[in-house]
Amino acid sequence: MPPVTTEIPNVALRALIERSDYVAAQEWLEERPVWEVADSLDRMDGVDAGIAFRLLAGDRALDVFEELDAATQEAVLDVMRGNEFRDFVDALDPDDRARMVGELPATVAQRVLAGLSPEERAMTATLLGYPEESAGRYMTPEVVRLKRTMTVGEALAHVRLFGPDADTIYTLPVVDKQRHLVGLVDLGELVLANPDSPVTDLIVTEPPRVHATEPAEVAARLMADSNLVDLPVVDAADRLVGLLTFDDADEVIEEADSEDAAHQGGSSPWSGHYMAVSVLHMARARVIWLVLLLAVSLLTVTVGYHFEEALEKVAALAIFIPLLIGTGGKVGTQASSACVRALAIGEVRPSDAVKVLWREARTGLLLGAGLGLLAIGAGIIFADASVAIVVGISLLIICLLGALVGGLSPLAAKKLGIDPALVSAPVVTTIVDVLGLIIYFLVASLVLGL
Amino acid sequence: MPPVTTEIPNVALRALIERSDYVAAQEWLEERPVWEVADSLDRMDGVDAGIAFRLLAGDRALDVFEELDAATQEAVLDVMRGNEFRDFVDALDPDDRARMVGELPATVAQRVLAGLSPEERAMTATLLGYPEESAGRYMTPEVVRLKRTMTVGEALAHVRLFGPDADTIYTLPVVDKQRHLVGLVDLGELVLANPDSPVTDLIVTEPPRVHATEPAEVAARLMADSNLVDLPVVDAADRLVGLLTFDDADEVIEEADSEDAAHQGGSSPWSGHYMAVSVLHMARARVIWLVLLLAVSLLTVTVGYHFEEALEKVAALAIFIPLLIGTGGKVGTQASSACVRALAIGEVRPSDAVKVLWREARTGLLLGAGLGLLAIGAGIIFADASVAIVVGISLLIICLLGALVGGLSPLAAKKLGIDPALVSAPVVTTIVDVLGLIIYFLVASLVLGL
Repeated sequence: MPPVTTEIPNVALRALIERSDYVAAQEWLEERPVWEVADSLDRMDGVDAGIAFRLLAGDRALDVFEELDAATQEAVLDVMRGNEFRDFVDALDPDDRARMVGELPATVAQRVLAGLSPEERAMTATLLGYPEESAGRYMTPEVVRLKRTMTVGEALAHVRLFGPDADTIYTLPVVDKQRHLVGLVDLGELVLANPDSPVTDLIVTEPPRVHATEPAEVAARLMADSNLVDLPVVDAADRLVGLLTFDDADEVIEEADSEDAAHQGGSSPWSGHYMAVSVLHMARARVIWLVLLLAVSLLTVTVGYHFEEALEKVAALAIFIPLLIGTGGKVGTQASSACVRALAIGEVRPSDAVKVLWREARTGLLLGAGLGLLAIGAGIIFADASVAIVVGISLLIICLLGALVGGLSPLAAKKLGIDPALVSAPVVTTIVDVLGLIIYFLVASLVLGL
Repeated sequence: MPPVTTEIPNVALRALIERSDYVAAQEWLEERPVWEVADSLDRMDGVDAGIAFRLLAGDRALDVFEELDAATQEAVLDVMRGNEFRDFVDALDPDDRARMVGELPATVAQRVLAGLSPEERAMTATLLGYPEESAGRYMTPEVVRLKRTMTVGEALAHVRLFGPDADTIYTLPVVDKQRHLVGLVDLGELVLANPDSPVTDLIVTEPPRVHATEPAEVAARLMADSNLVDLPVVDAADRLVGLLTFDDADEVIEEADSEDAAHQGGSSPWSGHYMAVSVLHMARARVIWLVLLLAVSLLTVTVGYHFEEALEKVAALAIFIPLLIGTGGKVGTQASSACVRALAIGEVRPSDAVKVLWREARTGLLLGAGLGLLAIGAGIIFADASVAIVVGISLLIICLLGALVGGLSPLAAKKLGIDPALVSAPVVTTIVDVLGLIIYFLVASLVLGL
């Protein structure tokens, strides 16, 4: 036993919890031997024991949990399932709350979640350390686990025994004694196999898996790519916590794609059915981006204001503004939407930035050259040759620029940890509007000597 | 026997096929009794028998098939699987080809498809009457069918016997003697049920299903909504042809969403990985829309040209053009992308048009009122009060218009049978650019008396 035990007496933990000194309590819990922590918890009751337990980190929490009296184990699980503890944690200041919502080890998490309805599960997920939109929030903990030592017949008997309580039995995870994920057995293959052969013959080892705190969208896309009906969800120590089923994954993908679509349309995502949300709610989801972009658009006004003299001298310049910046915005939108989608489905990674820029630059130049020629024709018809040349050169540069802005922005967003889908057509066109206008007036000043 | 038999002698069918008179051959096949048609087919061989068989329609094809000698049945199936018949059909003129690619009855289609690789299956799908991108092209015909009269134990034995040849056994369709789809049994429930109980206890009757010629995307969305692992695919007479599995459905949805994303970005979809397709290919996918929209954008030039005098008198008007039409385009893009997504996931139907317009009109007015006030401020700073009023009023109207154009266009596209996703940000902004410019100049003319 380390000498510290004599410095802080045994009763201290309860006292520390009671006076809400969670920093000291966490220190105490880290320093004391497991049996002493368990013993202290056994003497506490209700929410206090729950709090103390939640202050323990990862593997240590598991060690302590296993050392607890059966009654205290139940009490701690009950506390974490209950409203009282939830209300208590909600009321904490953020620092203390963060101390108390570290990820629980799989064994305990699963026992907390077992028997809860999906709604209760969602509410409890925060307390287990699973962030919003994480795989842990969508998974089902009620699965049938197999052991490596079983025969096919034993495994089937095991499935018949525990299957009725499980949410899915299509996929049967195989775990070792410490609950580490060993592999997966497919129910179909189990049914078709010889009952006497060992289950190890059927195990798919090293299956794809996600960590419970990872985003559910990542998990769902991984599932779609790996053609699994159910994807194993593990804790930080690779212990099985549950399975993400294909129907939950479908839901996650539909939500994610709807969110991306809203972002790509230049509005915040709204919650709910298009026909059901209120007009005010819809306007609120849209107005933020509009005001933000209007502020940026004011730069076009200042650019125009700066070149007002040039516009007074050659009024014909004004009539090509919508065509030029509009086309630039379109080239930019094509590039950005292609990159956003490629990022979403994993075809492009932020490290590909240089290659993407090089691709988009060449595409932009190709498009700009073709459209520039068409624009020169229009310039000759509606103005004169000199304006036509200004319009043609400007369009070439604006297309190149649009493609570069469109290609680079989603990658930059991703690198900055922002959702690339936020790089929408409205965002790209606004940037290209401002830059395009500057280019147009600069080219005009140079060519026409204004 | 009808009197026509004496008019057209028995050998006629072969003669008609040999001189490629498919219209007459089809007439002959429709008029003759089943046994006579079967008899004629038995006497023909190779591709000719295949052609004659493919000229038969729906249920009649099934009746004739069942009447054929076993050897002729095999010959006909072989012909439809082979390259020779495919080449022959490809070379036909469209009218004759259409005569020969009507949907095959489920029983025959399944026997043609069984044992083919996915690639061969895809190539043969046309010959079975399944259009491009239809559910019939993605389904697997290799499934295990149960009978209503089985016990759970018998059903499991049946699964063990036929399962190894099936692509999926998660879902076990139950069919009657004519192969009509009666319902579905889930493998999990079959495993957990008492072996002596009748399988009827487990059948989910009237399950969701799709017709083999329906678009695969419709099928995949239906699956996601109905939480089925496998969706039954039936022929015109509701007979089971196969199952669409969840992994094929995932693939279909990812393809469809990528296509929608490309369209929404204002380009044609391209086939292949973003990083792998050539720059030229990418430019080609984008240039069509750009040129199309550039042509429409030329209207902005003509509008500007028409109001050039006004621009000469009040040069300050020009500097607000990008802000006004840009904002209108954004409001339109928000509305259109919301409606496109709502249509894609089935939240909105074309019949909701009036409600959608009413929602978008109110949203647009709300947004226009707010943004209009901000624009008036900008107008006062960069020009004068009268221009500011022009800008404010114009923006209000342009926002209303943007929301209406954005909301209505996807619905109109859907009603016209065009993919609503084609109503992209670039399309909406181009329309709003032109209309917005007209509104701006009209308001300016009225308010400033130009």
